[in-house]
Amino acid sequence: MTNGDSLIPTLGGHWYADERVFAAEQVRLFERMWFCAARSGELAESGQFRRVQVGRESVLIVRGRDGELRAFLNICRHRGAMLCTEDEGRIQRNLRCPYHAWTYRLDGKLVAAPNLGALRSASGEAIDRVAYGLVPVALREWLGYAWVCLAEEPPSFEADVVNAVTARLGDPTAVDSYGIERLAVGHRVVYSVAANWKLIVENFMECYHCATIHPELTEVLPEFAQGLAAQVFVGHGAEFGPDIAGFTVDGSAGFDALPGVGPEQDRRYFAITIRPQVFVNLVPDHVIFHRMYPLAVDRTLVECDWLYTEDVVAKRRDVSRSVELFHRVNQQDFAACERTQPAMSSRAYRHGGVLVPAEHHIAEFHEWVSRRMEEVE
Amino acid sequence: MTNGDSLIPTLGGHWYADERVFAAEQVRLFERMWFCAARSGELAESGQFRRVQVGRESVLIVRGRDGELRAFLNICRHRGAMLCTEDEGRIQRNLRCPYHAWTYRLDGKLVAAPNLGALRSASGEAIDRVAYGLVPVALREWLGYAWVCLAEEPPSFEADVVNAVTARLGDPTAVDSYGIERLAVGHRVVYSVAANWKLIVENFMECYHCATIHPELTEVLPEFAQGLAAQVFVGHGAEFGPDIAGFTVDGSAGFDALPGVGPEQDRRYFAITIRPQVFVNLVPDHVIFHRMYPLAVDRTLVECDWLYTEDVVAKRRDVSRSVELFHRVNQQDFAACERTQPAMSSRAYRHGGVLVPAEHHIAEFHEWVSRRMEEVE
Amino acid sequence: MTNGDSLIPTLGGHWYADERVFAAEQVRLFERMWFCAARSGELAESGQFRRVQVGRESVLIVRGRDGELRAFLNICRHRGAMLCTEDEGRIQRNLRCPYHAWTYRLDGKLVAAPNLGALRSASGEAIDRVAYGLVPVALREWLGYAWVCLAEEPPSFEADVVNAVTARLGDPTAVDSYGIERLAVGHRVVYSVAANWKLIVENFMECYHCATIHPELTEVLPEFAQGLAAQVFVGHGAEFGPDIAGFTVDGSAGFDALPGVGPEQDRRYFAITIRPQVFVNLVPDHVIFHRMYPLAVDRTLVECDWLYTEDVVAKRRDVSRSVELFHRVNQQDFAACERTQPAMSSRAYRHGGVLVPAEHHIAEFHEWVSRRMEEVE
Repeated sequence: MTNGDSLIPTLGGHWYADERVFAAEQVRLFERMWFCAARSGELAESGQFRRVQVGRESVLIVRGRDGELRAFLNICRHRGAMLCTEDEGRIQRNLRCPYHAWTYRLDGKLVAAPNLGALRSASGEAIDRVAYGLVPVALREWLGYAWVCLAEEPPSFEADVVNAVTARLGDPTAVDSYGIERLAVGHRVVYSVAANWKLIVENFMECYHCATIHPELTEVLPEFAQGLAAQVFVGHGAEFGPDIAGFTVDGSAGFDALPGVGPEQDRRYFAITIRPQVFVNLVPDHVIFHRMYPLAVDRTLVECDWLYTEDVVAKRRDVSRSVELFHRVNQQDFAACERTQPAMSSRAYRHGGVLVPAEHHIAEFHEWVSRRMEEVE
Repeated sequence: MTNGDSLIPTLGGHWYADERVFAAEQVRLFERMWFCAARSGELAESGQFRRVQVGRESVLIVRGRDGELRAFLNICRHRGAMLCTEDEGRIQRNLRCPYHAWTYRLDGKLVAAPNLGALRSASGEAIDRVAYGLVPVALREWLGYAWVCLAEEPPSFEADVVNAVTARLGDPTAVDSYGIERLAVGHRVVYSVAANWKLIVENFMECYHCATIHPELTEVLPEFAQGLAAQVFVGHGAEFGPDIAGFTVDGSAGFDALPGVGPEQDRRYFAITIRPQVFVNLVPDHVIFHRMYPLAVDRTLVECDWLYTEDVVAKRRDVSRSVELFHRVNQQDFAACERTQPAMSSRAYRHGGVLVPAEHHIAEFHEWVSRRMEEVE
Repeated sequence: MTNGDSLIPTLGGHWYADERVFAAEQVRLFERMWFCAARSGELAESGQFRRVQVGRESVLIVRGRDGELRAFLNICRHRGAMLCTEDEGRIQRNLRCPYHAWTYRLDGKLVAAPNLGALRSASGEAIDRVAYGLVPVALREWLGYAWVCLAEEPPSFEADVVNAVTARLGDPTAVDSYGIERLAVGHRVVYSVAANWKLIVENFMECYHCATIHPELTEVLPEFAQGLAAQVFVGHGAEFGPDIAGFTVDGSAGFDALPGVGPEQDRRYFAITIRPQVFVNLVPDHVIFHRMYPLAVDRTLVECDWLYTEDVVAKRRDVSRSVELFHRVNQQDFAACERTQPAMSSRAYRHGGVLVPAEHHIAEFHEWVSRRMEEVE
């Protein structure tokens, strides 16, 4: 009998139900860490933009004329109007505020405004068109996504993001085999989930629920019926069942393996959590990439991309059977999370529930969240 | 000229409009007192359940295989999912959590879970299947209803509930004459009322409004046109008008009197308030039983049962004329309460309104609420 | 280079987004100042009433049998029911509370109630029918509108309201030329705007946005394309363009000038802000009169009247082209305000934005609001 057999406590219910906890998480997690915001391949052309909610801020991600992708707070420096009210689109030339016509270049610099030449700063000098330019937000591109950080001094991208993937896969080059940055979006679903974002993380991290709610997934990955998530082990990929030809809803064949995928990755499923809001699933012929946008203590948007080779997408090959598999998994998981959320404020969950051995690795997530929330500013 | 003619003050408006008052009432009244939750006759078969909101908790009331009716918090001990998301139904065998399949017997004991045999408590022993069973809630059956209490040490049911009825009727055996526990539900209406629960109590307690808003009721009970509620007097039942054959919307005859009803109860209407959330109306041939579920400071569900003999219900005899009478009374009363709620935050009601002599007995309700709210934990 | 060319700061974002600021504004501005509530010409007959929201109070404005217009809190003195639940209408005789039939004369005096004769005050005397009458609210009629004030000691109407108009027009008699109190409502639109009331005031005060969002208005008033609002100068009216025949959406001719309008007012547009919630626009042949009802920190109702001579309205002459001009201006302005509101909580607006020289006069509004909010009770 080892500690591994014992029940250990979860976080108490207020962590999932108290608006003050959520407000602190916005400040201490989502507005300080690297946040995966948009597929950068969808912003390939100069002027293409995407608007996303990061913590409490509306952030604009836009491709410059110089080919550089940049992020800015979506607000005019003059009287505060939102510059973009659409979620995506293409700016023809400059970003022009529709209220008073203050106009910014795609690199953020203020380039025009009515009577701009006559304007003086408080000290009487001609105004600094960079200082009065758009407020920049740190941005990195990796795996074909734009990751942004609202912190004034962003943490190390390598330590926080890249290492999360390496540590899970146990091999610094393993993720490169999939060439995720070169894949194209074959399908996207946005789910609006009535649950706290941490319930969704915890659900993704464990497979003790798989036998109960995921019949299609356990058919394809029989070891999941035993309840141990791939994430429990470093470098472990769950193996397809003997009769399974591909990662599809009926086990039928998918596409050719992605170019760099090696034999140790073929017929296997890997799952990675990148804190605070990304889940990646790797299978031989496609990648499933989830990003969460926590909107309220009990509401989370989850945007899920199914990524295939450019060739599969360009030729409009039929991706429906692989999409259907994880779409069902998502629906099953989010229904479970939505069923859990209302009970978080019960007196019975004041001190939380328990983790069984197959869920023990979630405790490390709980410790991480608690520690981040206790840190001195 | 006596004190009985004077105007005396009501509670101030914040008692009806301040969310902090309501939150305290949830803790100090609805989660500590006996709360009438469900008609137990509707839970006659093993596995039949009803889910109800008591204070801030979702409570499950379920009939066991041993015939015992029990109540539990509606939450799984493992990771907190709600066990039932339906308001009523029948469990075939055990209560199985749909998230990770932890399974509870109808008496609450944990009987199955994936890898349950391997689970150990923190101290390393096999887990206690009762300690990890469902969280029990105290339950009593009386008058054919399940009354539950969320307090760890429930107050005396006899003192708080039974005596409220006895004190009003002035005779410990009077209520037994109606055999309420043997009656069947002939009709039920659930009203969603946009008003604080105390406005509904106060409305039920007085009849100064009867002449203004209840034309049908005052036709049947002429003394109500004078404005004095039956509740003003101990043991008083309002008498039917001379031309009135039964307690129906048009005064036409109802059914035979209930078996135990005596001559002193015939042709009379009795009304009882059982704090904090039950109203009972007794007439010779049926009983009207209201339960309130306070959901928010300005929102209350009222579930109203019309109870008749098993014979009347089994033979589907026409109850529409007796239902229609009190349904109209309810609609008239709740419209008045909804009209009052928005004015509770006016400066003009900061120190409340006034009670006329026919309403003086409401002051005792106000004193009781105030006293409960001031009590030290 | 003068201070007039520099950028000066606005209020910080929390002034527009924090519910506590709005709650304080309700107390310190809208419930203490004169508030323009209703067109008194629409309440010409005895018993005609209008119900309006002033600060946190529902206020009833009603014409008495003696021809006097009065305002009362819309709440019964007995148990607090709202007397009127309709926004306008005509009371046949007295104001009778529909709950317990307490009945008030149109001058507010309590005249009837069940058992009223027997009622005694706490000290045992017959109750004072004035003291238990409706709670009166101060009311003044001016420019054909009913202005009410919830303060126990209202400020000077002449200093706060009349002088605001005089100071703007630079001539105490200028407003009288339009005879606004004799005009009739030719058209009314109520706009529900998802923005803080101060954003709407600021928008109305400046014209730096005119060239960007008001093509029709700058066509009619070419000087507005330069960005200077008429409100920047005392007594200045913006002049119609040389090809413009009238203040209409297409510049076509309007009606004859109002009887008292002089040559210095002909072919000119004057705009006046009367704090806290009125905007008046004067053109030769009609008057556009806006009243705001601030409902929440991010929600404001704006009721806009287009006023013409009795003759124009009685003969149903076509007012659509003049209505259309300012209706478009309103829609353009309110869209800009709604676009600004969500950004008020951004970190980029924590210390506000900037005012360009053409907006410098808004700073005085900001100082006024700040000062009112800092005043000791």
